[in-house]
Amino acid sequence: MNLSGIIAYPITPFSADGRGINLPVLTQSLELLLASGCHAIAPLGSTGESAYLSEDEWQQVAAHTVTTVAGRVPVVIGLSELTTEGAIGRAKFAESIGADAIMVIPVSYWKLTDQEIHAYYREIAAAVSLPIMVYNNPATSGVDMSPRLIVDMFRDIPNVQWVKESTGDIQRMHAIAELSAGELPFFNGSNPLAFEALCAGASGWCTAAPNVLGDLPRALYEYVYDGNLKAARDLFYRLLPMLRYVVAGGLPKTIKAGLELQSIAAGAPRKPLAAASDEDISELRRLLAAVQ
Amino acid sequence: MNLSGIIAYPITPFSADGRGINLPVLTQSLELLLASGCHAIAPLGSTGESAYLSEDEWQQVAAHTVTTVAGRVPVVIGLSELTTEGAIGRAKFAESIGADAIMVIPVSYWKLTDQEIHAYYREIAAAVSLPIMVYNNPATSGVDMSPRLIVDMFRDIPNVQWVKESTGDIQRMHAIAELSAGELPFFNGSNPLAFEALCAGASGWCTAAPNVLGDLPRALYEYVYDGNLKAARDLFYRLLPMLRYVVAGGLPKTIKAGLELQSIAAGAPRKPLAAASDEDISELRRLLAAVQ
Amino acid sequence: MNLSGIIAYPITPFSADGRGINLPVLTQSLELLLASGCHAIAPLGSTGESAYLSEDEWQQVAAHTVTTVAGRVPVVIGLSELTTEGAIGRAKFAESIGADAIMVIPVSYWKLTDQEIHAYYREIAAAVSLPIMVYNNPATSGVDMSPRLIVDMFRDIPNVQWVKESTGDIQRMHAIAELSAGELPFFNGSNPLAFEALCAGASGWCTAAPNVLGDLPRALYEYVYDGNLKAARDLFYRLLPMLRYVVAGGLPKTIKAGLELQSIAAGAPRKPLAAASDEDISELRRLLAAVQ
Amino acid sequence: MNLSGIIAYPITPFSADGRGINLPVLTQSLELLLASGCHAIAPLGSTGESAYLSEDEWQQVAAHTVTTVAGRVPVVIGLSELTTEGAIGRAKFAESIGADAIMVIPVSYWKLTDQEIHAYYREIAAAVSLPIMVYNNPATSGVDMSPRLIVDMFRDIPNVQWVKESTGDIQRMHAIAELSAGELPFFNGSNPLAFEALCAGASGWCTAAPNVLGDLPRALYEYVYDGNLKAARDLFYRLLPMLRYVVAGGLPKTIKAGLELQSIAAGAPRKPLAAASDEDISELRRLLAAVQ
Repeated sequence: MNLSGIIAYPITPFSADGRGINLPVLTQSLELLLASGCHAIAPLGSTGESAYLSEDEWQQVAAHTVTTVAGRVPVVIGLSELTTEGAIGRAKFAESIGADAIMVIPVSYWKLTDQEIHAYYREIAAAVSLPIMVYNNPATSGVDMSPRLIVDMFRDIPNVQWVKESTGDIQRMHAIAELSAGELPFFNGSNPLAFEALCAGASGWCTAAPNVLGDLPRALYEYVYDGNLKAARDLFYRLLPMLRYVVAGGLPKTIKAGLELQSIAAGAPRKPLAAASDEDISELRRLLAAVQ
Repeated sequence: MNLSGIIAYPITPFSADGRGINLPVLTQSLELLLASGCHAIAPLGSTGESAYLSEDEWQQVAAHTVTTVAGRVPVVIGLSELTTEGAIGRAKFAESIGADAIMVIPVSYWKLTDQEIHAYYREIAAAVSLPIMVYNNPATSGVDMSPRLIVDMFRDIPNVQWVKESTGDIQRMHAIAELSAGELPFFNGSNPLAFEALCAGASGWCTAAPNVLGDLPRALYEYVYDGNLKAARDLFYRLLPMLRYVVAGGLPKTIKAGLELQSIAAGAPRKPLAAASDEDISELRRLLAAVQ
Repeated sequence: MNLSGIIAYPITPFSADGRGINLPVLTQSLELLLASGCHAIAPLGSTGESAYLSEDEWQQVAAHTVTTVAGRVPVVIGLSELTTEGAIGRAKFAESIGADAIMVIPVSYWKLTDQEIHAYYREIAAAVSLPIMVYNNPATSGVDMSPRLIVDMFRDIPNVQWVKESTGDIQRMHAIAELSAGELPFFNGSNPLAFEALCAGASGWCTAAPNVLGDLPRALYEYVYDGNLKAARDLFYRLLPMLRYVVAGGLPKTIKAGLELQSIAAGAPRKPLAAASDEDISELRRLLAAVQ
Repeated sequence: MNLSGIIAYPITPFSADGRGINLPVLTQSLELLLASGCHAIAPLGSTGESAYLSEDEWQQVAAHTVTTVAGRVPVVIGLSELTTEGAIGRAKFAESIGADAIMVIPVSYWKLTDQEIHAYYREIAAAVSLPIMVYNNPATSGVDMSPRLIVDMFRDIPNVQWVKESTGDIQRMHAIAELSAGELPFFNGSNPLAFEALCAGASGWCTAAPNVLGDLPRALYEYVYDGNLKAARDLFYRLLPMLRYVVAGGLPKTIKAGLELQSIAAGAPRKPLAAASDEDISELRRLLAAVQ
C-alpha cells in the first residue's frame, strides 16, 4: 500500500449535550476534507480527540468514517491507548471494519522503556494484518521515541510501514532518513515545519489544516514535489501564521471553531478542554482573511 | 478533617491473566501498609496504576480498600481522568462508598490552560462534598500546575484542602507556603526530596515506600517533626539509594517486585509496563539489605 | 585548613568613570561583611564581577582584599578564566599575596568534556599549593560539572578540598555526600536553597546576602547547626523573598544597589550590565523593610 | 554592502608552545578557504577561538586576515567580548584596519536583559561606521536573543544589517522573516540545518565546513539558489554526517584536525580545549572518505 501527500485529520463532533457523537456533522467534516483534495483521511488522531472517547464512541467514529469515505481515499485510523490490551482491541476493530491502516501512538502515565514500546507495537502488529504508522508526539503522549527506536521497529516488525514525526525537530527526520538508508517513509506532523520537512524528503504531511485551509496544504505539497521551491516558500510563509495558530490553541478547539466559521456545527471539544473564546474566533477570522 | 504524616500508596495487584483485580493480594498489601504505621492510605494513585484501569476495576479497588481499611486510618482515593465527566463519575463513586477524601490529578493529552484546570477542579468539587487533595505531577500527567494556580484554587474552591507536590522542586513548596501565607498544607510526593520537604514545613509525605521500607518513612517524619535533625538526616541518607531506585524504575514495577520479595504475590504491572527483570530484583535485594 | 559557615562575597566597586577600581569603597564593603560575622570572605566571585575585570584590576582587588581583611577571616579568591594558562597565572598571583584558598570556576565558550575539566583543575592545582574550592554554576559559566566528576577530582587532586554547588538542585548535594561517603565538604551557592542545603549537611553557605542582610545569614546557619529547626525555618521564610530577589536581578546590580541604600557608594556594575532602576530600588527597599 | 552565500570561518592557529599566533599557517588556512570559492571570510568567530585570545593576539589575527585576503572577498571580523568597552575597542580596531563588517556576539556571565543587549549593540554601532552582523548562539555565548529583539535592533540601529542565527531552530528563521517583513537578511550558523535554512530563505550559510569540505558547501548553496531541490537534498544528506561531526566535537578541535589531514599544521586548540584524539582523527578520516 502506497501512502503519500496530505493525510487530513477530521475532528470528532459531539452531540449537543456533549455525551455522544454527532454523526451527521462528522459526515460533513469528512466531505469537506475529501473536497480539499487530501490523499488520505486519518480519523481518531490528536485532532479527533481520540484519547477522550469511550470505546463505544471510538468504534462509532471509526466505522462511520470508513463507511462515509467509502474507498475514495485510504482511511488510517488512530489509536492512543494506555494499555497494550486496549490498543489490540481497537486495532482488531479497525481491521474488522475495513480500515486501510492504523496510526498508533503509545500514550503513557509511567514512562516506557524502549523495550516496553517495542513490545507494545510488536503485540499490536501481531494481532492484525493492517499496515501501521508509528506516531511520535511526545508533547501530547508523554512518550518520546528516538529515531533509532523507530527505525529498529521498522526493521523488526513487518507491518510497521511509516512513521509520523510530530516533534517539529527536522533533525529527527534527517536521522530517520539516514538510519533507515532512506527506506522508512516519514510523514511530518508538525504544521510549522511542513515546508522544510517536505524539502527534506518527507512523504507527506499529516495535518488538520485542510479543515480551514482547503486545498492549500495540498498545493504546498505539490509545489515541493514538483521542485517549485520559490512558489512553495511563498505559499508556506502565507500559511504560517495560521498554521502556528491552530497548533498553539490546541487543534480540537481551533479546528472546531474554524469549521463553525464555515457553517459546520462542530461544537466544542470535550471538557476539560474549553471551546474557543470570542477573542480566539476573531483572531482566527483575521488570520483566515490574511491567507486569502 | 486533619491529615498529616505518611500517606501510603498501595499497589493494584492483577489476577494471573492480567485482566482482573486480585482482591486477596490487595488485602494483604493494605494490611502491610497499616502495619507500617502510616497515617493514611491512598489507593488508586500513581503506584496503584489508576490510569490503566477500567471503570469497573477502579470501583472494585476503591470499594475493597474502604472496606478493608475500615476506618483504621483515612482513605484518600486517587482519580486520574482525562475528561471532566469521567472524573466526576469517579468522585461520586468515592463519596458513595464512604471514602474520606479524594486526590485528583488532571491528566492531559492536549495541554490545559489554567482556566481549564480551574474549571476541572471546580466542577468535580461541586459534585461531591469530599475534601480534595490537588495532585501535581507533570512527569506522569503532562499537566504542570503552578503554585499560583494551586493556591488560587485553594482560595476559590471550598473543598480543596491540601496539595501534593511531586515535581521534586523544593522552591514550589516555598512558593505554596508564601502564596498561601502558610494556610495551604502541602504534602511531598517526591521520594528523594522527602527529608528537605519535611524540614521546609510539609505536612507529610505521600509515598509507596512503606511497602518496602516498613516503618522507616514514619520514623523520618517523626524525627523531623520532633526537631531531631541529625537523626533525620542520617536516616534519610540511609534510605535515599532505595528511595531513588523505586522512583527511577517506575513505582508499580519496583514496588510490586519489592512485595514479591516479602512473599506477597503482587505480580506484574499492566502492559505495556514490564515486570522487574532479574537484574532489577537483585539490585532491589541489595539495596534493601543495605538499608537494614 | 577548616572552612565552614558563611562565606561572604564582596562586590567590586568601580571608579566614577567605570574604568578602574574604587579601593576605598572596596574597603568599606569588606568591613561591612566582617561586621556581619561571616566566617570567610570570597572576593572576585560572581558577585565580584570577576569575569569582567582586566588582569590588572583583578590583581588589585585580590591584593587589596587580602591586605584589608588582614587575617581576621580566611580569604578565598575567585578565578573565572577561559584558558588554563590564564587561570594558572591568577592562581599563582593569589598564592603570592597570601590568599588562604582559591575558588575556581571553569567558564566556557566551547563546551568542555569531563577530561578537559579534570585537566584544567589538575594543572591549576599543580601550579600552586593553595587549597581549591571547585565551583559549579552552569547558569553563569556554561559548564556543568556532575557530582561524579567533582568527587573524582576531589579523590584525584590533593588540593581540591571543597565544592561550592550553585545549581540549586538539592539532589546534587545528596549525590556528592553519597559518592564521597561524606568526605567532601560541600557549600551551597544558591540563596533560595540555603535552608535545605544546610539541613542536608552543607558545611556552609557562600552568599552575597550579608551585604544586605547583615548577620541574619549567619543566624540561619547557626540555627541549623544547633538543631533549632523551627527557628531556622521561620527565619528562612522571612529572608526568602529578599534572597530570591537578589538572585533574580543579577547579584552585582542588586547588591550594589543594596549597599547604596546603606550609604556605601558601590556604583553600577560594568556595562553591558545595567544599574538598578528606580523600580528595582523601591522593590529592594520594600523587601528589606519586610525582613526587619 | 551586499553579503550572501558561504561565509567561511578560518581557525586561529597557535605557535608550537601555544602562546602566540602562527601567522604562516593562518595564511595557508585563508588561502584554502578562498580556493573553496567562499563568498566571504569571517575570522575570529567561534571556530577562530576568538574568546580565548588576548587583545594583542586578536588584533594580530584581524590585521593579518585583512591583509592576506586583500579584498578578494569581504572580511567580517568577529567580536565576543563580555564588556561593552572591550567590544567597542575591538570594533574600532576592526574599522581601523579596513575590515568590511563586524559580527558581534554578546557573551555573558550574568544573564543580560533585552535592554542591556540592545544598549550593548547600540553603543558598539555608534562607535564605528562598519555594518554589523548580529550573531545569536546561546549554546556558546550564554545569551539568547529572540527574533523580536533581533528585529527591533535591526529597525533601531542603522548599521545592524544582518543576523546570523545559530540555534538550529528553523522557527527562529521563520519568525525573523515574518517580523521583519522579509527585510532582515538572515544567515544560518547551524551546520546540520544548512539545507532547510537555505530553502526557508536564508541569505547564506556561515560555516567552517569549507575547511574540510572544499567547494561542496558552495555547491549546496547554489543548488538551492537555482531551485535544484533534488540535487541539493542529495548533496546535503551526503554531507550531513560530516557536518554533524564537526559540530559535535567542538569546531576548533575538529576543524584543526581536518586541516592537519590536509597537511596544514593547524595544531591544537588552546587549553582547556583538548586536541583531537586518535579516535577522533580516524572517525574524521572515515567521514571525509564517505563524502567523496
